[in-house]
Amino acid sequence: MSPWHAAQIGDAVESIDTPALILDLDAFERNLKRMADALSEKGVRLRAHAKSHKCPEIAKRQIALGAVGICCQKVSEAAVFVEAGIQDVLVTNQVVSPSKVAKLLALAQRARIGVLVDHPQQVTLLREQSQKAQVALDVYVEVNVGANRCGASPGEDTLKLAREIVSSPPLRFAGLHCYHGGAQHMRLPEERLQAIAQATRTAQEMRDALLAEGIPCERITGAGTGTFLHERDSGVFNEVQAGSYVFMDRDYRDNHPGPDDLMFEHALFVRTTVMSQPTADRAIVDAGLKASSVDSGMPVVWQRPDLKFLKASDEHGVLQVSPSTKLQLGDALLLVPGHCDPTVNLYDELVCVRNGHVEAIWPISARGALL
Amino acid sequence: MSPWHAAQIGDAVESIDTPALILDLDAFERNLKRMADALSEKGVRLRAHAKSHKCPEIAKRQIALGAVGICCQKVSEAAVFVEAGIQDVLVTNQVVSPSKVAKLLALAQRARIGVLVDHPQQVTLLREQSQKAQVALDVYVEVNVGANRCGASPGEDTLKLAREIVSSPPLRFAGLHCYHGGAQHMRLPEERLQAIAQATRTAQEMRDALLAEGIPCERITGAGTGTFLHERDSGVFNEVQAGSYVFMDRDYRDNHPGPDDLMFEHALFVRTTVMSQPTADRAIVDAGLKASSVDSGMPVVWQRPDLKFLKASDEHGVLQVSPSTKLQLGDALLLVPGHCDPTVNLYDELVCVRNGHVEAIWPISARGALL
Repeated sequence: MSPWHAAQIGDAVESIDTPALILDLDAFERNLKRMADALSEKGVRLRAHAKSHKCPEIAKRQIALGAVGICCQKVSEAAVFVEAGIQDVLVTNQVVSPSKVAKLLALAQRARIGVLVDHPQQVTLLREQSQKAQVALDVYVEVNVGANRCGASPGEDTLKLAREIVSSPPLRFAGLHCYHGGAQHMRLPEERLQAIAQATRTAQEMRDALLAEGIPCERITGAGTGTFLHERDSGVFNEVQAGSYVFMDRDYRDNHPGPDDLMFEHALFVRTTVMSQPTADRAIVDAGLKASSVDSGMPVVWQRPDLKFLKASDEHGVLQVSPSTKLQLGDALLLVPGHCDPTVNLYDELVCVRNGHVEAIWPISARGALL
Repeated sequence: MSPWHAAQIGDAVESIDTPALILDLDAFERNLKRMADALSEKGVRLRAHAKSHKCPEIAKRQIALGAVGICCQKVSEAAVFVEAGIQDVLVTNQVVSPSKVAKLLALAQRARIGVLVDHPQQVTLLREQSQKAQVALDVYVEVNVGANRCGASPGEDTLKLAREIVSSPPLRFAGLHCYHGGAQHMRLPEERLQAIAQATRTAQEMRDALLAEGIPCERITGAGTGTFLHERDSGVFNEVQAGSYVFMDRDYRDNHPGPDDLMFEHALFVRTTVMSQPTADRAIVDAGLKASSVDSGMPVVWQRPDLKFLKASDEHGVLQVSPSTKLQLGDALLLVPGHCDPTVNLYDELVCVRNGHVEAIWPISARGALL
């Protein structure tokens, strides 16, 4: 990591070293409030996904506004949040190695911990180790509701897994994980609507089939920032796992081309500096793909339609400059990352700004927690 | 970061937690030796690019085999290496903020430090601060030799900058930086050859023009893993800045489709685990785009033509599985990253293996050194 910080608390925004990851606290707090309100008014729980922010300070604020807990994708990520005091963590992934299950069970002695399964072998592993350790775990069956990534097939495969969990104390059958990752990034609203309608039907069928066997299915959890209003209003999902809504990114913004239907604001930016302008129409900034992940396309330059971020190499960003624009070396710009999650994962801290000054610096404590 | 390590020294390879970044020490050492030999036999210096590995242990081994020093892309990256004892660092970038120049000059009091310019304003800034601090700096003019990123135009712009540096002690005019980044990833050998032939002509013209004015141009530095044999044999370049050769990645390998002309071996891998196999033809591994950067395309599964890495989401990799292949949950696989530099930047340490065991664990000390 850098031997010095990009900023100190109290610094003027203009003096922040670059590239730095900036959180606009006003926009961020409005995003938190909007999501909390949108779900509480319909009686749907928020279990915020912490893979997006990896930051305990943010998780605590989500919980303070009513979130029941968080999701993580990795056991080591969950460990960071439990250590920071978060008491309810669902690892929205399969865990298949005995050593990693042991780490998960150690966490379950300190907090409420959940995990997913989509294969009987995972249930066996969890049961054996949880029985030996005498530690309970919430276990959800991940159902493939259309994303074709992980997830048991809807039907007998799903029902069988639920039965196995029910008969494997101290494992607790906690419900169905019905996340449709692919739907989050479908460009057209109708596509997203239809995908979640199908996911809802599948979830409902599985829930009803379990009930018919006398297995209550307390929780149907899923959804992300791109589709959560559909899950919220489905009458079937009763928990939402959105994460990116705290920041918003260029890719999610592209799903809302109109000005009226955007519920969340850009709150996350990469502050960057113009370090070279070799020609009138080309400028180079000090933020490349190690500063703003390009897996979902290039960042955009915030509120500067005269500047287009053309391409990124490791440590350089190439901007196309409009003829009427005069840039100076040293000018600072803000980029809206193409994809917030992997961009946050490149930084050790969030520089939190308000009213032109640095109000706080929050460690991204689970950055790089891959295990 | 993860609260635990992926492995301990002495562990069997099979017990390494995943995802983990693996260095095959035998292949790595052969790569180091091949580059050192290839350059020393022609009397061309190696100034290894440390942006690829960000690891002082590797820099020390490169220098032990004859490298004159290293390149870095960021002042904070250079600071990590100077702190680790590296005595000669060229920051292959422009530095335009007074606070960052001050950091650079502080390093120049402890080691030989170089930096690039492509605009007179940068020379002025460096001169004013180096005079005030009474610290010398090597300053190179970056020339645009075809990459159209940073770099002064060949001709009067370049010559003028060199003159300004010469007349600005304690700045030292150290030479011309003529790196053609775009050429490194051209797929066809003829394209690379032609691009570097043009870069060489440009570099030679600038050197000769400076000499005609009585300004000796000690160093013509540039080249990367994709083209360095051309620069080596140019008779004009006398220093090579290759970095990726220590690891090799899928993208560089794609430039060498034949079996005979590959000088370097894959030494860097992401170890990953099969955590789900929902259908016979689809398996999910625990390494997504936060474990192997996809900016240059997907990784490949090492020595497994029966498995194709189709796509990556944040923490999942989706494999297409051949009909004849039987995978088990928990199976470990090795991925060859699409692009080594940003992949290394995702990890805190390199797990170094030889003969089936973990021989060393090297901190990636400059990981995330963005400033």
